[in-house]
Amino acid sequence: MSELFGIVRSPRLRASPFYEATVRAGAKAFMPYNHMLLPSMYTTREEEYETLVNAVAIWDVAAQRQVEIRGPDAEALTQYLCTRDVKRLRPGQARYTFVCNHDGGTLNDPVLLKLADDHFWLSLADRDILLWAQAVAAERNFDVAVGEPDVSPLQVQGPLSADLIGDVFGPEIRDQKYYNFVETELDGVPLVVSRTGWSGEFGYEVFLRDGSKGPWLWDLLFAAGEKYGAKPGAPNQIRRIEGGILSYGNDMDDFVTPLELGLDRLVQFDSADDFIGRSALDAQRAQGVERELTGIRFGGDPVGYNPEFIDVSRQGETVGYITSMVYSPRYSANIGFVLVGVDHAGPGTQLDIILDGGIRHGVTAEIPFVDPIKK
Amino acid sequence: MSELFGIVRSPRLRASPFYEATVRAGAKAFMPYNHMLLPSMYTTREEEYETLVNAVAIWDVAAQRQVEIRGPDAEALTQYLCTRDVKRLRPGQARYTFVCNHDGGTLNDPVLLKLADDHFWLSLADRDILLWAQAVAAERNFDVAVGEPDVSPLQVQGPLSADLIGDVFGPEIRDQKYYNFVETELDGVPLVVSRTGWSGEFGYEVFLRDGSKGPWLWDLLFAAGEKYGAKPGAPNQIRRIEGGILSYGNDMDDFVTPLELGLDRLVQFDSADDFIGRSALDAQRAQGVERELTGIRFGGDPVGYNPEFIDVSRQGETVGYITSMVYSPRYSANIGFVLVGVDHAGPGTQLDIILDGGIRHGVTAEIPFVDPIKK
Repeated sequence: MSELFGIVRSPRLRASPFYEATVRAGAKAFMPYNHMLLPSMYTTREEEYETLVNAVAIWDVAAQRQVEIRGPDAEALTQYLCTRDVKRLRPGQARYTFVCNHDGGTLNDPVLLKLADDHFWLSLADRDILLWAQAVAAERNFDVAVGEPDVSPLQVQGPLSADLIGDVFGPEIRDQKYYNFVETELDGVPLVVSRTGWSGEFGYEVFLRDGSKGPWLWDLLFAAGEKYGAKPGAPNQIRRIEGGILSYGNDMDDFVTPLELGLDRLVQFDSADDFIGRSALDAQRAQGVERELTGIRFGGDPVGYNPEFIDVSRQGETVGYITSMVYSPRYSANIGFVLVGVDHAGPGTQLDIILDGGIRHGVTAEIPFVDPIKK
Repeated sequence: MSELFGIVRSPRLRASPFYEATVRAGAKAFMPYNHMLLPSMYTTREEEYETLVNAVAIWDVAAQRQVEIRGPDAEALTQYLCTRDVKRLRPGQARYTFVCNHDGGTLNDPVLLKLADDHFWLSLADRDILLWAQAVAAERNFDVAVGEPDVSPLQVQGPLSADLIGDVFGPEIRDQKYYNFVETELDGVPLVVSRTGWSGEFGYEVFLRDGSKGPWLWDLLFAAGEKYGAKPGAPNQIRRIEGGILSYGNDMDDFVTPLELGLDRLVQFDSADDFIGRSALDAQRAQGVERELTGIRFGGDPVGYNPEFIDVSRQGETVGYITSMVYSPRYSANIGFVLVGVDHAGPGTQLDIILDGGIRHGVTAEIPFVDPIKK
């Protein structure tokens, strides 16, 4: 069901520092993401999945732009924008967090990195959070600078990523804890290397802090990765759905709250600090949610990634919609996420899916499908 | 120099209500725009230009989303967000305006429509201004609702557009003044029809207020347009550059101010009201701008639309960059816009352009290239 179209470039659709390298490496489709081109396919989703789960995949995710918050009030603003407890973070630590609107709906689910007490990055999903953060900062008179720095991440993901990263950056960076990061340099080029990623596999992100050095970093990582079978790839829908990793704009949007995603633990309800959306989320927590994201599994022909939401019904009544779906080679079944009324979200609920004009019978399942890799 | 790539669809990249119709009509390339697919090519830019300047072109610009501002403080918020004098507008009037950040840089150049004293639309260029407006509204405690309504415009542009619109909507809507609009209904479907557009030609926009009626409106307009030679098309880079119409993200961005665009007249410096960016723009006006957008004309092989900015130099020194360029059949020359230091912006200045490895000699020119159509 995926469809391919031509896309016309313009300055408004910016190229990544790795762009020429990705085209040479065979990128044949892109996604628009934060007004940039994000490579979304080189070979096939299944072939890239094999590389990711067995060796090491390198992804150009420069489109995962950073919002940089610096200055005396950087911590106060970041805390106000994020649902996690920002004040407990030490420099060198990162957190997966939500940025909510005043109604508790999600505007983004970035990784937050604390570089220093007065210096933070929000490593973004696809949305102009720069505008959101700048508006809040200016209108609340926070003493901060909020901008988009010259920072372009590559993700290095897969079971052999530690070997590759160890060879290039040494054991200290290789062995850092999950959701930690290190500021470093290589040949005088400033970089940040974190133990994070969007794959469900063991992995790292390498944030290039000098956009002119894209080809250099790309070539360096592939040269080091050759003996580990490193290949270029794109954020992999199969593995991320298996691993219960959510995609902003698909599995959540302005009207979906963290509680509806079942991610209450990522909201600091017990904190003394205020954050945008808090009162709405407090109220929803007291009342209970009316719908919930859960897994779904179904048979029939293998499905591609869904180009739009797909309604699901129970006994003839529409009760929700599939947000993401894909065929999983691991389970020889189609799997996905479905946002449904809470009465229909319990594991094992039978739901009907209208697909290609026919009905398929699905069964809800817990998220994640695959147990997390030991981090 | 334009390049075509595959693009993978997902729910994050929403389809327009006219999407299926545009695909059936032969849309072969799309632009991502406000997280939607905007058709950007059916045949060739030149062929679509001929339809636009000689007959009537119909464009799916549903991706030109509206930010809707309603409530007791709607006028106050809209005034604070826009550089134009919002308070002078009557219901049924529209204005081309800038939305600036606190430094005076442009975040958008929407058309503002005043539907009622407490009801406004910002008809957007590509940027999440919804987040900007919602953040400002909430943090300043304006008593308003800010959202994205179910409103999807089609542009009906070209010298025969008045005949088409007259046949469908009658003489009153056909004969309305430039930058006016009318709320109306057809077969019970709510619509807004305005005398606006992004073509430089005489034209209208038809805002569909019920997304389920996309195919109906598309078919109705094409049936009425058949005798006028109506054809589907995309926002036309040739005609808009000839007409001096700017494109957000290409000709301006966060770091370019209205004064640098030479559009001081769109900033209400003499108003008693505050608006975001005012103090920065006041200061820039007092000091004078350091760079300015102007036209440029050059020969050599016809160029396609530029995928990125292109440096221009004078006597070996880089003095600015081309923001947009295209080959104009009307002038048998390449034309475009260039953002250069003010010392190099006067008409007739010779500038060198590095293109495809060679140097082309360009000459600056006044914007617009073509005198405006009598409105």
